[in-house]
Amino acid sequence: MIIVKANGKHESFDPEKLRFSLLHSGANEEETENVLSHLLPELKSGMSTHDIYRHAFGILAGISQPAARSYSLRRAVMDLGPSGFPFEDFVAEILRAQGFQCVTRQTVIGGCVPHEVDVVAYNDKKLLMVEAKFHNELGTKSDLKVVLYVKARFDDLKDNVYSYGGNNRKMTGGWLVTNTKFSSTAIHYGECKDMTLIGWNYPEKGNLQNMIERHGLHPLTCLTTLSDAEKTVLLSGGVVLCSTIKEKPQTLRDLLGADFDSVAVLEEINSL
Amino acid sequence: MIIVKANGKHESFDPEKLRFSLLHSGANEEETENVLSHLLPELKSGMSTHDIYRHAFGILAGISQPAARSYSLRRAVMDLGPSGFPFEDFVAEILRAQGFQCVTRQTVIGGCVPHEVDVVAYNDKKLLMVEAKFHNELGTKSDLKVVLYVKARFDDLKDNVYSYGGNNRKMTGGWLVTNTKFSSTAIHYGECKDMTLIGWNYPEKGNLQNMIERHGLHPLTCLTTLSDAEKTVLLSGGVVLCSTIKEKPQTLRDLLGADFDSVAVLEEINSL
Repeated sequence: MIIVKANGKHESFDPEKLRFSLLHSGANEEETENVLSHLLPELKSGMSTHDIYRHAFGILAGISQPAARSYSLRRAVMDLGPSGFPFEDFVAEILRAQGFQCVTRQTVIGGCVPHEVDVVAYNDKKLLMVEAKFHNELGTKSDLKVVLYVKARFDDLKDNVYSYGGNNRKMTGGWLVTNTKFSSTAIHYGECKDMTLIGWNYPEKGNLQNMIERHGLHPLTCLTTLSDAEKTVLLSGGVVLCSTIKEKPQTLRDLLGADFDSVAVLEEINSL
Repeated sequence: MIIVKANGKHESFDPEKLRFSLLHSGANEEETENVLSHLLPELKSGMSTHDIYRHAFGILAGISQPAARSYSLRRAVMDLGPSGFPFEDFVAEILRAQGFQCVTRQTVIGGCVPHEVDVVAYNDKKLLMVEAKFHNELGTKSDLKVVLYVKARFDDLKDNVYSYGGNNRKMTGGWLVTNTKFSSTAIHYGECKDMTLIGWNYPEKGNLQNMIERHGLHPLTCLTTLSDAEKTVLLSGGVVLCSTIKEKPQTLRDLLGADFDSVAVLEEINSL
């Protein structure tokens, strides 16, 4: 059976990938097989990956609330998508919730060359260079090569003095934040070099899922009351969080038109 | 018009990519336009990228021999392909021609983690860790991130002692060899860090094209007297150079069957 991926390409549907995703979302084996046995007879050629996974999640939601919530959140982060820079904006919002000031997409001068840095985050004590590594497939891992290039980049930046926040000071750390897992070699290397690696569920405490839930930073892609097209307009406008909409409901009409009916969206956000 | 890429995927034919490739092969603008005006009316949906480029090169060969030879060689290196490891084997052959002993696909223990190293090359004085970076599109550049991860990997390896060649010694250098160009930032960084970067036509002297031509190391993918299937069999058997076949013609029959008629292939190799 041929399905349509997020990038528009066609591929055969592989139930193993879906099984893998369900298991890694926190569903146990019984729940996973239960979802698959309900889902598989209903699939048709031409369906999108997005539709199939949304459907699978819907079935899971009826079986296990915690697994469904985790799965839904991970999917929503993935739906931030590779186009434009919403994952970088999202990572900046997470750091702001922890008291950092953030600027995104900076060109930062190193000892040898200028570097494109996704997020520069700073407070009184820290000045962090953050790489936001987005993958749009649940099974992809951030591997050793990614951690290596972040290390070499930090090494090239660490001897210079920067004036972020009005202080002249050196970088205090290099972070790598990803929406997927890290390979075990990547983790060993990062620990050995004292780097801060944050993945979907690494480290055990303070991982991406923890941070999102602790600060209530749900990306707006988790909402079912907005169409994909409306989400894209909001993301392009720099709005990535449900909480931003909650604080400034007017944003919806500013970006989606004066006639947009915000009531259902705001109700869904309040119920999160 | 829809064409078929080397990986089997379909995409629309983009004459700009072909124009870019022709210009970067050494053809001048007039020669390039001349090739395109001959070629474009003859294209049909369903043709493969490979066929179209081979045809373009055939036309160019009738116009400019030096441009055609350079283009043909670059294409042949690209035809080593991403499947299996022939580009790594090819890079090892180039280093052997310069007096190094080489082993490919080594797991080398660093200070923090083990690293997959494409080629370890050594002689009495030098012990090199070589990354062979293959791209299968003419327009792709090896960018800063690649050079950064090679640097960080070398940094993790450089304090250990290795026994390649029977001597206990440290690494003396990290090389990055690619079949494409480097971005200008990648080159600046590599020069700043004293790394050895070798691309298709970087540095000006001693680049990949120079090395291939100086030592007569034509990859067997440049031969027109072997089918694609026969080339694949030979590459899978670890044979990547025309010179290997010239030295041991028996290799052809060993790998392609006792009935294989070697005469035309050996004639073509002798005429290179």
